[in-house]
Amino acid sequence: MPRIAYFGPQGTFTEQAARALAHPDRDELVAADTVSAAVAAVRTGEADAACVPVENSVEGAVPATMDALATGEPVVAVAETVLPVRFSVLVRPGTRPAEIRTVTSHPHALAQVHDWLATHLPHAATVAATSTAAAAVAVRRGEYDAAVTAPVAVEHYPLDVLATNIADVADAATRFLLVRRPGSLPEPTGSDRTSIVAVTPDRVGALAEMLAELALRGINLTRIESRPTKERLGEYRFFLDLIGHVAEERVGDALAALRRRCLHVRFLGSYPTAERISTAVPAYAVDTEFRQAAEWLTAVRHGETG
Amino acid sequence: MPRIAYFGPQGTFTEQAARALAHPDRDELVAADTVSAAVAAVRTGEADAACVPVENSVEGAVPATMDALATGEPVVAVAETVLPVRFSVLVRPGTRPAEIRTVTSHPHALAQVHDWLATHLPHAATVAATSTAAAAVAVRRGEYDAAVTAPVAVEHYPLDVLATNIADVADAATRFLLVRRPGSLPEPTGSDRTSIVAVTPDRVGALAEMLAELALRGINLTRIESRPTKERLGEYRFFLDLIGHVAEERVGDALAALRRRCLHVRFLGSYPTAERISTAVPAYAVDTEFRQAAEWLTAVRHGETG
Repeated sequence: MPRIAYFGPQGTFTEQAARALAHPDRDELVAADTVSAAVAAVRTGEADAACVPVENSVEGAVPATMDALATGEPVVAVAETVLPVRFSVLVRPGTRPAEIRTVTSHPHALAQVHDWLATHLPHAATVAATSTAAAAVAVRRGEYDAAVTAPVAVEHYPLDVLATNIADVADAATRFLLVRRPGSLPEPTGSDRTSIVAVTPDRVGALAEMLAELALRGINLTRIESRPTKERLGEYRFFLDLIGHVAEERVGDALAALRRRCLHVRFLGSYPTAERISTAVPAYAVDTEFRQAAEWLTAVRHGETG
Repeated sequence: MPRIAYFGPQGTFTEQAARALAHPDRDELVAADTVSAAVAAVRTGEADAACVPVENSVEGAVPATMDALATGEPVVAVAETVLPVRFSVLVRPGTRPAEIRTVTSHPHALAQVHDWLATHLPHAATVAATSTAAAAVAVRRGEYDAAVTAPVAVEHYPLDVLATNIADVADAATRFLLVRRPGSLPEPTGSDRTSIVAVTPDRVGALAEMLAELALRGINLTRIESRPTKERLGEYRFFLDLIGHVAEERVGDALAALRRRCLHVRFLGSYPTAERISTAVPAYAVDTEFRQAAEWLTAVRHGETG
């Protein structure tokens, strides 16, 4: 049975994402203590895949994931899923709203339902927990009255749902990746994303040139983040998400160009986008154009006039 | 007495940063509940300046700050400071290490001293708090035995320092900005940083062109982050930190070019870098070259041959 490690504990948003990415009958889900432990389980072969959060529309990028993917034995993303960040409020069976004196959750979750709590439970004090799941455990134990959790938590703990689908920011969402050891790539679907990490030389214009290589081939970026490498001052590691699949000519050609230009390029996977997006490739950058141009060049090099 | 709002509560790293940025005798420090409340206090005139965290080498960018600066009435950064993320462990007077059964702090702080706790207090359970300062309060009240806090916390709470200067990652650091309402800019020092937010059109190459405008003028970037604007799909807001002062010709010229190219550019300030850096400006991009070229162009336009 394939094992999928996820950044746990049980009952968190990452478990919910892992369920969305797993085969319901075939895969076994295993909680890991940290993002890096989940990825390490894939590297050692203890797990076949890992589900990790990569970016949140409110909290930003997840540096622990970026660092875990950028260094160590290579792993590649084969799928992504996007979960709306909408919470449930869980209570012990029979608890009435008026009885709720304390609400617990991870500080990030408490921050994201701050307005809801002020409106619906104005007299309850908030208490921090190490995770949304730990909050559910504390309520189950009777330590606090209500827990703000991922919707999936109610499947693990015998608690009642006081409210669900709540969030101050209506469109908050988290994107998760399913990563595996390198092997065969997912087939291109026409709506794919490719993730890479590139380290550029410490020189004015190095990033501009890298992005020009992508732009000249009609490739759109969906994310860019810089992090210092910590190895050398002024040396940066860039995390790029771009639209397209490495099997496509323009993406492959661009990645090869980056490989020439950058100190280091790591391929982090080509995988279908969670929501289907239209990939408008300029006429000069479609696969047939690349192939015809290559044939023409070969002909010219063989002394034909083309 | 000038008032400086900071993301509180008292006794956190942001208070410590605010102290580093404030005039010790002249400024009054006022804690705000959130980053956006601290910035709002400047906008309303309730405070003269705000001290907010902008990026952490372990946790990454601080989206709350980025969002607070990117939208709403403009504010500009006039100074920055970088604090090493090194913690103290505070206990009630007389507590011996062997008596410590529980350690509390913000989950991020607990994560950043995980190894230290495993080595020095292996039998203590960890408990989440909403802030490092709230952890100190809970220890003071006798709820838990030890708190992991910013070093400044000991000045607010009658607790003893069991250990200080601890961190699993030796070089972890957080950068803070001091922001004010727009007015006169700090003088250029030769080691300055300029922060901007730019919204590009949804078009392949828009970012590459923007960075080319900077690179062609010999301007080095120290940070880039993308965030979706949430206003229109495919529209991104880029946060850029670059080396140089807007009063310098090359920086001013580049910002004017971005103003032409981007849907929106917001100037977030030019201020001295916390650590002095060498700004190697290419010969073609120094101020005198810009001025001589402008004079030459004027001459040519007046019918002189130059």
